Amino acid sequence: MLITTVGLDADDTLWHNETIFRLTQDRLRDMMAEFAPPETTNARLAEVETRNLRLYGYGVKGFTLSMIETAMELTGHNPPGRLIADILAAGREMLQEPVEPLPGVEAALAELSEHYRLVLITKGDLLHQEQKLAASGLGDLFAAVEIVSEKDASTYRRVFDRHGTGATEAVMCGNSLRSDILPALEAGCWGAYVPYPVTWAHEVAELPGEHERFVELGSISELAGWVRGRS
Amino acid sequence: MLITTVGLDADDTLWHNETIFRLTQDRLRDMMAEFAPPETTNARLAEVETRNLRLYGYGVKGFTLSMIETAMELTGHNPPGRLIADILAAGREMLQEPVEPLPGVEAALAELSEHYRLVLITKGDLLHQEQKLAASGLGDLFAAVEIVSEKDASTYRRVFDRHGTGATEAVMCGNSLRSDILPALEAGCWGAYVPYPVTWAHEVAELPGEHERFVELGSISELAGWVRGRS
Repeated sequence: MLITTVGLDADDTLWHNETIFRLTQDRLRDMMAEFAPPETTNARLAEVETRNLRLYGYGVKGFTLSMIETAMELTGHNPPGRLIADILAAGREMLQEPVEPLPGVEAALAELSEHYRLVLITKGDLLHQEQKLAASGLGDLFAAVEIVSEKDASTYRRVFDRHGTGATEAVMCGNSLRSDILPALEAGCWGAYVPYPVTWAHEVAELPGEHERFVELGSISELAGWVRGRS
Repeated sequence: MLITTVGLDADDTLWHNETIFRLTQDRLRDMMAEFAPPETTNARLAEVETRNLRLYGYGVKGFTLSMIETAMELTGHNPPGRLIADILAAGREMLQEPVEPLPGVEAALAELSEHYRLVLITKGDLLHQEQKLAASGLGDLFAAVEIVSEKDASTYRRVFDRHGTGATEAVMCGNSLRSDILPALEAGCWGAYVPYPVTWAHEVAELPGEHERFVELGSISELAGWVRGRS
């Protein structure tokens, strides 16, 4: 069976992302310390994020708005001193965080790009994802970049029809079972799961059972060898 | 000379947008009345927006963050009662505003789509623009949709190469000289300018001088006739 196209998730597959959200969330918890115990801040933020997801979608700007909303609620709408300004600044810092490819990513993409069409498929804020890709220095290795609002089976069918030879001849590689693997398998793709040490609660899902098109890899460095074995 | 492809801006070309931003800005001025005269709120918001544009890009979420930042600055970081919650709510309302095509838009697009490839080209928040297109009921008339972070000449070249027969056989139609017309002309497209009653300060630009590929139309209803005349 032929594989012509390799789809790659970006956040936490090519570079750190969730870690930056977690560190910012730690800062929020510290800022809120006099108003709420850490678990309360965490729980309230998760609630607010879930409530807003349908409107805000994914990305730093929506996360910043949800942090502000959480802080207003937990301070009884009486935020002290520079609390809100500090949250705004924390959001802007996230948008300016330097981007560095995860270990092995550059070599893996360079090798894959010699034989396969690479397509970056990611959620998040449009401008921020473009800026991160530019900052990563990986842009030239991709034949196409698709920043999408949702990753479901129809997304993968559409993207691999447009930029490849269809979903059945594509593999999707990423760290999120829920966003990268399960809907790609549903679309008829291969799915190569490369776990990242932390996963956003919203992205947690069960491993698929036995599935002939699914593989879990220890690192992205194993991807090229695995794809070659399928071709 | 052949035209095969018609690019259309969305906000203030297919449906109201700037009006919704202006109305929300009016609400912010009212909320801030006890802290700053209206002109001060306007001026400070414009400053904050400009400062943040490079990081936030275009769209409601960045605008909401900039409104909050403005309110914090003008209240000396001591916002009264529900001010910040009210601004968050105003931003969410903008994201849920019903979308109705401007007069003449549906008929114009229906006529054009019979003979030309229609491509929607818009800036703003990815998810919100997709939601607005879905709500407008116009989605099926477009052969392709490109939500982009910036509209410059290279954007138009890339989009019309991908979805048409190149920039020289495309016309770009929109209400912003700065975003829709001047860079499209620079890319080698035709430019059809359909003014909207209000323009965001950031989008203001001079009319091009005499330019054989530029036309100003009184309404989008004139577009199909004008394109036919070029073909």
